[in-house]
Amino acid sequence: MDLEDTLLMMPGPVSVAPRVLRAMSKPMINHRSAEFAGIYTDCREILSNIFKTDNDIFLLSGSGTAGMEAAVGSVVGKGDKVIAIENGKFGERFKDIAALYADVVPAVFEWGLPIDLELIKEKLEEGAKAITLVHNETSTGILNPAAEIGKLARKHDALFIMDGVTSIGGDDVRVDEWGVDIAVVGSQKCLAAPPGLSIVSVSEKAFEAMKEVTKRPYYNDLLAYKKSGDKPKPETPYTPAIPLFYALQEALHIIKEEGMDARIKRHRILSEAVRAAVAELNIEMFPQLNESSHYSNTISAMKAPAGIEGEDIKNDMRKQGVIIAGGQERLKNKIFRIGCMGNVTSRDVLSTIQQLEIVLNKRGYIDSLGAGIEAAIRVIDRA
Amino acid sequence: MDLEDTLLMMPGPVSVAPRVLRAMSKPMINHRSAEFAGIYTDCREILSNIFKTDNDIFLLSGSGTAGMEAAVGSVVGKGDKVIAIENGKFGERFKDIAALYADVVPAVFEWGLPIDLELIKEKLEEGAKAITLVHNETSTGILNPAAEIGKLARKHDALFIMDGVTSIGGDDVRVDEWGVDIAVVGSQKCLAAPPGLSIVSVSEKAFEAMKEVTKRPYYNDLLAYKKSGDKPKPETPYTPAIPLFYALQEALHIIKEEGMDARIKRHRILSEAVRAAVAELNIEMFPQLNESSHYSNTISAMKAPAGIEGEDIKNDMRKQGVIIAGGQERLKNKIFRIGCMGNVTSRDVLSTIQQLEIVLNKRGYIDSLGAGIEAAIRVIDRA
Repeated sequence: MDLEDTLLMMPGPVSVAPRVLRAMSKPMINHRSAEFAGIYTDCREILSNIFKTDNDIFLLSGSGTAGMEAAVGSVVGKGDKVIAIENGKFGERFKDIAALYADVVPAVFEWGLPIDLELIKEKLEEGAKAITLVHNETSTGILNPAAEIGKLARKHDALFIMDGVTSIGGDDVRVDEWGVDIAVVGSQKCLAAPPGLSIVSVSEKAFEAMKEVTKRPYYNDLLAYKKSGDKPKPETPYTPAIPLFYALQEALHIIKEEGMDARIKRHRILSEAVRAAVAELNIEMFPQLNESSHYSNTISAMKAPAGIEGEDIKNDMRKQGVIIAGGQERLKNKIFRIGCMGNVTSRDVLSTIQQLEIVLNKRGYIDSLGAGIEAAIRVIDRA
Repeated sequence: MDLEDTLLMMPGPVSVAPRVLRAMSKPMINHRSAEFAGIYTDCREILSNIFKTDNDIFLLSGSGTAGMEAAVGSVVGKGDKVIAIENGKFGERFKDIAALYADVVPAVFEWGLPIDLELIKEKLEEGAKAITLVHNETSTGILNPAAEIGKLARKHDALFIMDGVTSIGGDDVRVDEWGVDIAVVGSQKCLAAPPGLSIVSVSEKAFEAMKEVTKRPYYNDLLAYKKSGDKPKPETPYTPAIPLFYALQEALHIIKEEGMDARIKRHRILSEAVRAAVAELNIEMFPQLNESSHYSNTISAMKAPAGIEGEDIKNDMRKQGVIIAGGQERLKNKIFRIGCMGNVTSRDVLSTIQQLEIVLNKRGYIDSLGAGIEAAIRVIDRA
C-alpha cells in the first residue's frame, strides 16, 4: 500500500492539506517570543469564531484526551459530584476521567442509544457541580443534544463540560449560546490539522471553580494555561509542539477562507450523502435516534451487513486504498464507520462509496454497482 | 529578524535538520496500523541504545513536563513518601508534581549549588518510595550526580526517577547501569527533534509499583502506555502526534549515524569551548561545583558580567540573530545561558562566541575582539 496515496475516511486523523504539511517545514523558534505569541494569538482568534465564543481559548500540546482531562480535572475535586453522560466509548472515557478527580454520578445509556433528557433532568435536580457530555459520539455516530443539556445545566447551576472533539469545526457548535463552560476539540478531526493538539475554551464560571480545586492535573492544568495565556506576549505554560502550531494556524486559515457556514453545510451534505448511499445498499445506520438526537454530520456508523464482519469491510476497503474505521471495543465487528471530517470533498465521498459497493459486491451482498453512488449524487446535487 | 535564518543556541527547542523537517511533510496515517507500529518500534529501538537500557520505552505526545508527570504520578500515590531533590527550576517542578500525587520530602539546595549526597543519604535512610533527580539542571547549568543517587536509591530500595530531559542524547546517560527506574527526555533538546514528544523508560520495578497506585494521571498514565505498547502492533493509548513521530524517527537516525560516543564527545568539547571562551572574557560560570557535580555538557550558565543584565545580553544577541537564554524566575538578569544541544557544530559555537564578544565590546565590557574565540578554538583543536 502506498501510504502517500490513500484516502483517509476514518474519524481522525484526517487528511491534511499539502499547504498545512508545508507549514511544518519552517524552522524551530523560541516559544517565549513575540513570533510564537503572534501564531498563538492568530489561532485563538480564528478558533473563537469556530467555537462561537468570547471565552478564553487555549491550545494544549496533547491529544483530545489531554483536553478532556484538562476540562474535568481542572474544575472538580474530591467530593464534587459530576454527572457523566455515557452513550458511547468517549462518554465512557469522560466518566473514567471524572472518576479520577471527583465523585461520578453515571448516566449510562447503551452505546448507540440516545440520551433520555428526563433522566438527566432528574439527576441534575439532585445537585451536581458539573455535567459532562460528548456532543458528537465518534464511536457510535450519534449527535447528542448539547443545547438541551446546556439549558438544563444552566438551570441547575452545574458546569457544562462538552467534548466537541469531532463536532467543532465541522458541525454547528455554539459555545456561548448553549452555555458550554468548557468545550474541547482535537486538531486532527474537523479542523483538518495533524493530531497532537487539543483546544479548550473556558468560561469565567469555570475559572472561578478552578480556584477552589487544589489537586488539578499538572500538565493539563487550565489555570496554568490561563496564567501564561494572559501575558502581554501570550505563551503556553510548557514547551508547545511548535510544528503543530504552524500546521494548525494554516489549517485554521483554510477554515476561515471557506467560512464556517459553508463548512458546516458541506459536512452535513456529505454525511447525508453517505447515509443515502448506504440506505440504498440495504445497510442500516447504527444509532437509534429520538426527538432530540440526530445522526452525526461528521461520522457515519453503520451496522455490519448480515453475514459480513465490520472488520472485513474495513480490511477490504483498506486493500482498495480507502481507510475507514471499524467498531471499537464492544462494537468491534458489529459496525463500520466512515468519517466525513475536515476538508473532505464530494469526490472523496463518492470514491469511498464506489469502493464500498465493489467490496459489498465481491462479498455477494449486492448484485450490481451504482445504486449507492446514484443516491449520494442525488443528495449532493440537490444541495 | 528573519526567523528562517537565526542561530538557535538556547536550551531547546534546538535547530532541527532540514531532513527532519522534511519528514513531517508525509501525509497522515492511521495510528492503529502496521505502518505506525513500525515507526514506533524503530524509534523505541534506537532510543534503547541512547538510554542504554533494556527497559520498556514509551513515546508520549506531550512536552518533557508531561513525561515528568507520567514518571511521578504513575508510581506514587497518597501516603507515599517521595524525596524530591531540588537545586534549580526543574528540580522544583519535580517537587511540585510529586506534591500533587504523594507526600514530598523536600531536599532543597540553593539554585546553582551542588547536591549534598550525605544529606540525601540521611533522608533515604528514613525511608521513601521514590526519589526524583534532575540529571542536567537546565536552569543552572549543573550536572548532578545521577550514578551516585542511583546507587543510594537502590541501597534503600527507593524508585529512582530521573529527569534526563537535557542530558539524554547529548551526554552520557546509563539508565541500566545507574539503576534509573524511570528516565525522561524531551524531543526538542539533545535529540534535535521538534518539541512535543517526551520519551520515558520504565523498569520492571516501576511497573510493579504502578499496579498499586489507584489514582494515576489519565493522559500521562504509563500503565496505559504499557498496555498499548505491548500489543503485537504496538501503539499509543491516545492518538499520537503523528508528524512529530515522523520527525523524531528521522532525528534518531541522524543520531544513529553519528554514533552516541561521538555525539557525547562533541557535546563535551563544544561546551568546554564555551566555558574556555567565557573564562577568557572574564565571565564567571554560574554553578558552584563539589567533587560529585560538574558543569553541564549541554547548557552553559554564566553570571551576567558586572554592570550588564542577563536579559540585555540575551536581547543584544537576539538582534545579532543568535537566540540564547536568560535566567528563569529568581535567576532572571543574574545569568545568561548558551545551549550546546543536538546537532550543534563548532561553527555554531564559534559564531555564537563571536557575537557575544561583539555584544560585550559594544557594552564596554571588553576592549578587543578575538580572545574568547581563540580560547574556544584551542579546545576544539585539541580534541
